[in-house]
Amino acid sequence: MPNKELGGAGLRGQSAGTTALCTVGQSGTGLTYRGYDITDLANHAQFEEVAYLLLKGKLPNQQELDAYTTHLMQLRGLPQVLKDVLERLPAETHPMDVMRTGCSVLGNLEPETDFSQQLSATERLLACFPAIICYWYRFSHDGVRIDTEDRCEASIGGYFLKMLLDREPDEQFRQAMHCSLILYAEHEFNASTFNARVCASTLSDLHSCITGAIGTLRGPLHGGANEAAMAMIEQWGTPEQAENALLEKLARKDKIMGFGHAVYRERDPRNALIKQWSQRLSQQVGDHHLYAVSERVEAVMKREKGLFCNADFYHASAYHFMGIPTPLFTPIFVISRLTGWAAHVFEQRDNNRIIRPSADYHGPEHQDWLPIEQR
Amino acid sequence: MPNKELGGAGLRGQSAGTTALCTVGQSGTGLTYRGYDITDLANHAQFEEVAYLLLKGKLPNQQELDAYTTHLMQLRGLPQVLKDVLERLPAETHPMDVMRTGCSVLGNLEPETDFSQQLSATERLLACFPAIICYWYRFSHDGVRIDTEDRCEASIGGYFLKMLLDREPDEQFRQAMHCSLILYAEHEFNASTFNARVCASTLSDLHSCITGAIGTLRGPLHGGANEAAMAMIEQWGTPEQAENALLEKLARKDKIMGFGHAVYRERDPRNALIKQWSQRLSQQVGDHHLYAVSERVEAVMKREKGLFCNADFYHASAYHFMGIPTPLFTPIFVISRLTGWAAHVFEQRDNNRIIRPSADYHGPEHQDWLPIEQR
Repeated sequence: MPNKELGGAGLRGQSAGTTALCTVGQSGTGLTYRGYDITDLANHAQFEEVAYLLLKGKLPNQQELDAYTTHLMQLRGLPQVLKDVLERLPAETHPMDVMRTGCSVLGNLEPETDFSQQLSATERLLACFPAIICYWYRFSHDGVRIDTEDRCEASIGGYFLKMLLDREPDEQFRQAMHCSLILYAEHEFNASTFNARVCASTLSDLHSCITGAIGTLRGPLHGGANEAAMAMIEQWGTPEQAENALLEKLARKDKIMGFGHAVYRERDPRNALIKQWSQRLSQQVGDHHLYAVSERVEAVMKREKGLFCNADFYHASAYHFMGIPTPLFTPIFVISRLTGWAAHVFEQRDNNRIIRPSADYHGPEHQDWLPIEQR
Repeated sequence: MPNKELGGAGLRGQSAGTTALCTVGQSGTGLTYRGYDITDLANHAQFEEVAYLLLKGKLPNQQELDAYTTHLMQLRGLPQVLKDVLERLPAETHPMDVMRTGCSVLGNLEPETDFSQQLSATERLLACFPAIICYWYRFSHDGVRIDTEDRCEASIGGYFLKMLLDREPDEQFRQAMHCSLILYAEHEFNASTFNARVCASTLSDLHSCITGAIGTLRGPLHGGANEAAMAMIEQWGTPEQAENALLEKLARKDKIMGFGHAVYRERDPRNALIKQWSQRLSQQVGDHHLYAVSERVEAVMKREKGLFCNADFYHASAYHFMGIPTPLFTPIFVISRLTGWAAHVFEQRDNNRIIRPSADYHGPEHQDWLPIEQR
């Protein structure tokens, strides 16, 4: 029997399958990857360790991690055809559209023809995603063809910064990127992950699943909250100015991005973890107002609306301090969430039934055919 | 409360929303588009009338239909960048991957920046999809750059055949394509359509929704059954040979594609409609065995397994009689189903809540963090 009461309400609270990857809001600080608390992972791990955990099922030892990062470094070269395509995408293209096309084209050139290739196809994407977005960005904005085959910078976050900014990343930046990529890596049946699982349930290929997930993350109700938060806070020069402008926004009932959450009710466990990095980077780069503005916005939102910061809010200032242009914030989310998406695709394939729900019909009952000359 | 019993079972029988577009298996012959019976539509309408019905909500009168087909004809030119990309995709690329990338690239070049553009963006895709697949196919297989800006052949099915085969389509072929495209246009919350709605629920753009749906249709459990049916029947030269080989396959418990259905229990209303076209085309092209083989396979499957042909089975022979290469069968499905996908995206946007179900967790409980040197 279709559950009519819940139909149309975005399947909220309804189970659509099983997972061993993640719990959201159930225990500990509210987020675990394969049983490990997000706080432990974000404070102590490198992103590549978490990628290994999600994709291969356990935390690597030092030897395994070294081999993994070395392997990923060797996969950073982009096929010439993909570079040709990226060079033809205009500078004003939405960066998430570049990611979506880049992933699809890589799937054209190096298709996953058998599920035994799922891990290697994922590793290739993990190595190439920073290269894809930076190659397009630097070519379309600076006219430079970057060499993406870097084998010195082992961390994926540091590699992204190096390709983007054309210099060795600062060690603090590298660590902040580890934290950020870990926080965004996985979040159960969020919309983009569920989209990837629906695609996987027809036994389609990995690139189709990930391409669709990128397109889903692109939506303003999903990815992009950190970009919207940045656009807001960068308007304000002092905490006082921020408070006054925010109160006006609230009076106008404007939507304030970066606050509240569909599942969490009291706090988002990821906020404190990225906030500490925003604070450290603020001091390091000599920021005089953006972190203070962010803290004031947080306090006002709590006081006025009882709302807490989610993972996105302090990501805005943290990314900004590292010199990342705002339109590239959501592509970083892609680089990270790829690990969760792929791990869910593997799970779906392991115990598959095609995802084919029903719908409640509220359209016209029978309509008699009318020949066109009688309409 | 999550419905634990149904979790993981592909949401079968669970309502995931509402629709006014389609009923499957509820009334009449078992399939209606906006209340019109599929038999009336397939026997009397042109595909462009049905596209109009799905996308605009009513059947057009003659003046409206003429204006619509003229408008669609004017949208057939491909941007040079898209042609450059298609020329770089190797001949061995999966044709569905070409469709996925083609749709994504068109979204890069002509993005839907506001939902007020949703209808015009859909019409552009409707006009361009036959051009995209045929431009790539003819360039990669024949080394020819076709001129896709044809303004003589009004029907989308006829235009596809003309671009592919480089000659005016036979009138019978044109009519068969109308029937085929109408039958595949819409089917409620099938996996690819549901995938498009999940993407739409984040308020992402149309091209992201359709790109993901193409990737989902690509899976062998969804699209592609007509290609698999073709691969099977073309092996057999006589009905007797077919019967013997099929009995051996059944004895080995091989999966026979083109039979049975996830929702229909007794018959697929689309089968008789495409079967009559397969028979007519068989006579027209002087086929001596493929239609007879198909009929024998249908009879044996009914007798041995109690299974009926679904929409895909006689599509195989019908497409083959028109000279369409088997790998292009599923892209035709895309050209047709685009209308249903887009209509569902419009519906989702009209009454949206982000689709974010829950999952039942069966992974490890709390795991203590272990520093890497202790692993």
